[in-house]
Amino acid sequence: MMTDSAATLPAYEDVLEAAARIAPHAHATPVLCSRSLDALAGCELHFKAEPLQRGGAFKFRGACNAVWALDDATARAGVVTHSSGNHGAALALAARTRGIACHVVVPEGAVAAKLAAIRAYGATLHPCAPTIQARETRCAEVQATTGASLVHPYTDPRVIAGQGTAALELLATVPDLDTLVAPVGGGGLIGGTAIAAAARAPGCRVIGAEPAGAAETFASLQRGERVTDFTPDTVCDGLRGTLGAPNFALLQRHGVQVLTATDARTVAAMRLLWQRTKLLVEPSSAVALAIVLAHPEVFARQRVGIILSGGNVDLDALPALFARAEDAA
Amino acid sequence: MMTDSAATLPAYEDVLEAAARIAPHAHATPVLCSRSLDALAGCELHFKAEPLQRGGAFKFRGACNAVWALDDATARAGVVTHSSGNHGAALALAARTRGIACHVVVPEGAVAAKLAAIRAYGATLHPCAPTIQARETRCAEVQATTGASLVHPYTDPRVIAGQGTAALELLATVPDLDTLVAPVGGGGLIGGTAIAAAARAPGCRVIGAEPAGAAETFASLQRGERVTDFTPDTVCDGLRGTLGAPNFALLQRHGVQVLTATDARTVAAMRLLWQRTKLLVEPSSAVALAIVLAHPEVFARQRVGIILSGGNVDLDALPALFARAEDAA
Repeated sequence: MMTDSAATLPAYEDVLEAAARIAPHAHATPVLCSRSLDALAGCELHFKAEPLQRGGAFKFRGACNAVWALDDATARAGVVTHSSGNHGAALALAARTRGIACHVVVPEGAVAAKLAAIRAYGATLHPCAPTIQARETRCAEVQATTGASLVHPYTDPRVIAGQGTAALELLATVPDLDTLVAPVGGGGLIGGTAIAAAARAPGCRVIGAEPAGAAETFASLQRGERVTDFTPDTVCDGLRGTLGAPNFALLQRHGVQVLTATDARTVAAMRLLWQRTKLLVEPSSAVALAIVLAHPEVFARQRVGIILSGGNVDLDALPALFARAEDAA
Repeated sequence: MMTDSAATLPAYEDVLEAAARIAPHAHATPVLCSRSLDALAGCELHFKAEPLQRGGAFKFRGACNAVWALDDATARAGVVTHSSGNHGAALALAARTRGIACHVVVPEGAVAAKLAAIRAYGATLHPCAPTIQARETRCAEVQATTGASLVHPYTDPRVIAGQGTAALELLATVPDLDTLVAPVGGGGLIGGTAIAAAARAPGCRVIGAEPAGAAETFASLQRGERVTDFTPDTVCDGLRGTLGAPNFALLQRHGVQVLTATDARTVAAMRLLWQRTKLLVEPSSAVALAIVLAHPEVFARQRVGIILSGGNVDLDALPALFARAEDAA
């Protein structure tokens, strides 16, 4: 029935349906403001506080939507995914809300705090080598032996639609945003955000924030085709993934622009967010404020929504992380 | 007219009046929960998130109430206080909401981040030696030269009443608390909390959390008289002050109990709070969770409210702070 990939892209109705589906399980997170950050940025910032989401990140939205979209018979066999961290924890937590099994394929070298969270939520971990090929092979093996449904971290349309609910809530709280900024990794959050903004606030620009050390989405949009051959080098461990094909299609369709920031600027922005909002945001979230501060001309005097995506920080790694900010301009 | 000191103690009506007075200026902060912390503590915890209050601490409530309780003619000469940090920042911010001058006497050795905040809110700093005597002398000098009204950090009845609004809001959100825990420094917060709880939730116990290295309130309640001769030794920089006389009277009147925790336990609790609630709480707040975890038998299976008082952490001092947790049990 579906003749091209665009036919599988989620639409605004899917975001609305996701919002209704996850409402009994997810938190409607608060929107925070800081006059001192506004003064620093030269614009009016509204922060959607997804670190206060269940599991500590927006990822619970998409995972929860995917888990509760399954019919009962399919759900019974559980779910499986591959994830370096937040999505794995989110899917484990979502599976628990439905009382079904969750398998998570994790690459060696993933953040210890995030693996501990996945395990604590009751999922079974399946380690693999840190390549996309190895992840997908291991995932297919687990699917074959358990019958679990694959919930891809960012290409799954149910996941993209679920992630869009964060922007939906933010736009319900602050309807007249000029610009909405969200971090870009695989493109689940920015894709869902673009869908929600296009329908609810057609005049609102959507800008993706990407680490300069993993700026393959920036490159993909420049070239007009998806760049998949790159080696990420960034402290933003949630944004090292490759932009998905449906995600790329969504960004092109909605004219999403991407701006980048160095890790030094991102860690400096993270410290600012800790000090001014009192939220423990992770570097992958702080990159969104970093691009606003790095490109003031783009945001001057605007009303800007920023999706602070998550707060899963490895506290033992903090001194090394803080050292990265010392080169900041 | 007033024949004894008890006559100057604030009452429940003052807390209600404060709530109405500060409503246009203060945030009604959210109440956060964490299932994993509940599992760890063996009770049901409800955290009042005062780090999300304006100025990053509950102190804005009392300061704001004091500032807006002044008549116009008195207000015009400004306000003055002495404070090692959060109250100074809070009063500066409150004064700014009314457009009046604020003078803050600060002891040498106060936390740099907190002094910077006071200055950023537009107050004039007046340094003094780090003794109570020196603070009070300097304060009197500033009062004499400017005509500013003194707003004491924790004995002022308007301040105590204002601090009580945090418990008022928490009890409005979670009416059936068995126990309410708040940190104890000078006794403004715990005093206001005791007033609010006694009127709104008469069956609810109020417990003060005090650092073992500054446990003069614990000692005062044991002896039945106020201990004022002690030298605090704790990382909880917001709790080094001496319990005030009206505060002592309030704690006695309402049968408030005090429990203590070591700094090692407090810093470990702080890390837990960061990880599980994603709120950047300061050590002076974390002591409240620390006493719950250190005295599980007191809280077992109860519904417990905890006032997380503030989030003004000096990030540059973090490595030294984290090192304090290594001795924790």
